[in-house]
Amino acid sequence: MADFDTRRAPIVNIDRADHVRSDPEALADYSGMRARLLLLNGLDPQIDAEGGLVWGSLADAEPDAELVFLGIDGDRGCFAAVPKRPTGVGREGFMRTITALHDSQVPIYACARSLVDWHARHRFCAQCGSHTVPVKGGWQRGCLNDACGAQHFPRTDPVTIMTVENRTEKGERRLLLGRGLGWPEGRYSALAGFVEPGETIEEAVRREVLEEAGLPIAQVRYRASQAWPMPSQLMIGCAAVTFHERIVVDKTELEDARWFTEAQVRDVMSGRDGLFLPPPRYAIAHRLIRDWLDGN
Amino acid sequence: MADFDTRRAPIVNIDRADHVRSDPEALADYSGMRARLLLLNGLDPQIDAEGGLVWGSLADAEPDAELVFLGIDGDRGCFAAVPKRPTGVGREGFMRTITALHDSQVPIYACARSLVDWHARHRFCAQCGSHTVPVKGGWQRGCLNDACGAQHFPRTDPVTIMTVENRTEKGERRLLLGRGLGWPEGRYSALAGFVEPGETIEEAVRREVLEEAGLPIAQVRYRASQAWPMPSQLMIGCAAVTFHERIVVDKTELEDARWFTEAQVRDVMSGRDGLFLPPPRYAIAHRLIRDWLDGN
Repeated sequence: MADFDTRRAPIVNIDRADHVRSDPEALADYSGMRARLLLLNGLDPQIDAEGGLVWGSLADAEPDAELVFLGIDGDRGCFAAVPKRPTGVGREGFMRTITALHDSQVPIYACARSLVDWHARHRFCAQCGSHTVPVKGGWQRGCLNDACGAQHFPRTDPVTIMTVENRTEKGERRLLLGRGLGWPEGRYSALAGFVEPGETIEEAVRREVLEEAGLPIAQVRYRASQAWPMPSQLMIGCAAVTFHERIVVDKTELEDARWFTEAQVRDVMSGRDGLFLPPPRYAIAHRLIRDWLDGN
Repeated sequence: MADFDTRRAPIVNIDRADHVRSDPEALADYSGMRARLLLLNGLDPQIDAEGGLVWGSLADAEPDAELVFLGIDGDRGCFAAVPKRPTGVGREGFMRTITALHDSQVPIYACARSLVDWHARHRFCAQCGSHTVPVKGGWQRGCLNDACGAQHFPRTDPVTIMTVENRTEKGERRLLLGRGLGWPEGRYSALAGFVEPGETIEEAVRREVLEEAGLPIAQVRYRASQAWPMPSQLMIGCAAVTFHERIVVDKTELEDARWFTEAQVRDVMSGRDGLFLPPPRYAIAHRLIRDWLDGN
């Protein structure tokens, strides 16, 4: 007991304990003095020297803050507080944060950030304009207007992100990479785009590559996924193949897109060459490009 | 020209033509007399004898209806009108509709239904409570309060749905299927659940099976995806394997979950046995179960 308010050891894994969300008594039990609060300044966490997220107690939250139940760490409830006002997206700050965090901390931060940001931007009912309040430990918001009573749920927006392979006449593999508008100088990465209503993952990949680079896709394979809280995306990583080589860049979406040879990509990813700046290590694009180099 | 307002041939494929959405002039060009309007009664389509969606012209819309640009069919714009009021979910009616539609028509209806339903339930700004209006051909809604100016985008909610395989001591394959609360009598199908903020697809599958059936998962493989407009889900189909056999059903989520032998599943899917009612042919669960029977 002695260390409950001073111990600030990082939490490596949070059990989402979804049964607690809809059980007010259990939720109250987990909201006591031993509960931990993720310390956030707006959406930015405090990070210790080892890359761990820093936690406080619920007393560290503003008295009128809305709290979101993230889950449990052993017998302690884990919470995050919703910022008073919606916070700007802050891509650069986010990138610094993700870089500084230990790998084990990223999913915890991704979940908390997505949730509290969603709450901050959804204090009103989209159906009737009335005020809403968090319910089920912050995994829902309910409209206060009895005549409406709409329930709203946190968003997770599926986004496809894909390597695109083509072979030269000699059979040499090459990889399509592009540059988004306003990206850091020299950065090239995998193309990406939201899955739209009515689409499959594979259709979204085909549409995206055709729209942005003018290339018809012959084959799409799912490879891996990743949560990306900017603000709340599910990145769905795929490997695509095209038999076409003529790129037509949609300049409203991309600054550039081009083919890189396998040797070029290998040299850049191993740091031997600075031909372009690859996606950062923690981004799924990085993993997809490595996966492509490995021949998968 | 003679047939432009009488011809009601089904549309088999709509080009989403996303560049048109943000080009008011092009959008106006596609909104003329040749434009087609998906005929909807609330969210329910009209369906012809061949399972085709029935289209009219923009004159068939209420004069003050909000129109959503679905894309283009050749040189014709394709639109759907937003219902005046949010419409209930209507699962049974939706099931009848999906059953009656030709396969080629389902994605078109799925897109239209998801979009107009989203608009009907998002006429107010979740950030400030002010009125919103459709922009970019209905692929966005903008807040009318200049001090806020929030932009809102249609939702697509990723949902994992999974077969779960276990082998008996003799090495015989068996399949976990469950019954949701209030499902039609005898129906058993694949378990499913929303991907939550901060999760990967694979983590969501593991959490869902552990929560609902108490089974730790050893392996997850992505198989296929499908759009499911109830109201706007991206169903992400996976095949999972567990080495555990003891099912613990979460009775708040499921009425039942149990193992079926390969022979039992095969007999039910081929119609030779009525041991349980399998998922309907057009549902991804049906495809996942067939895929499992095929040994994939």
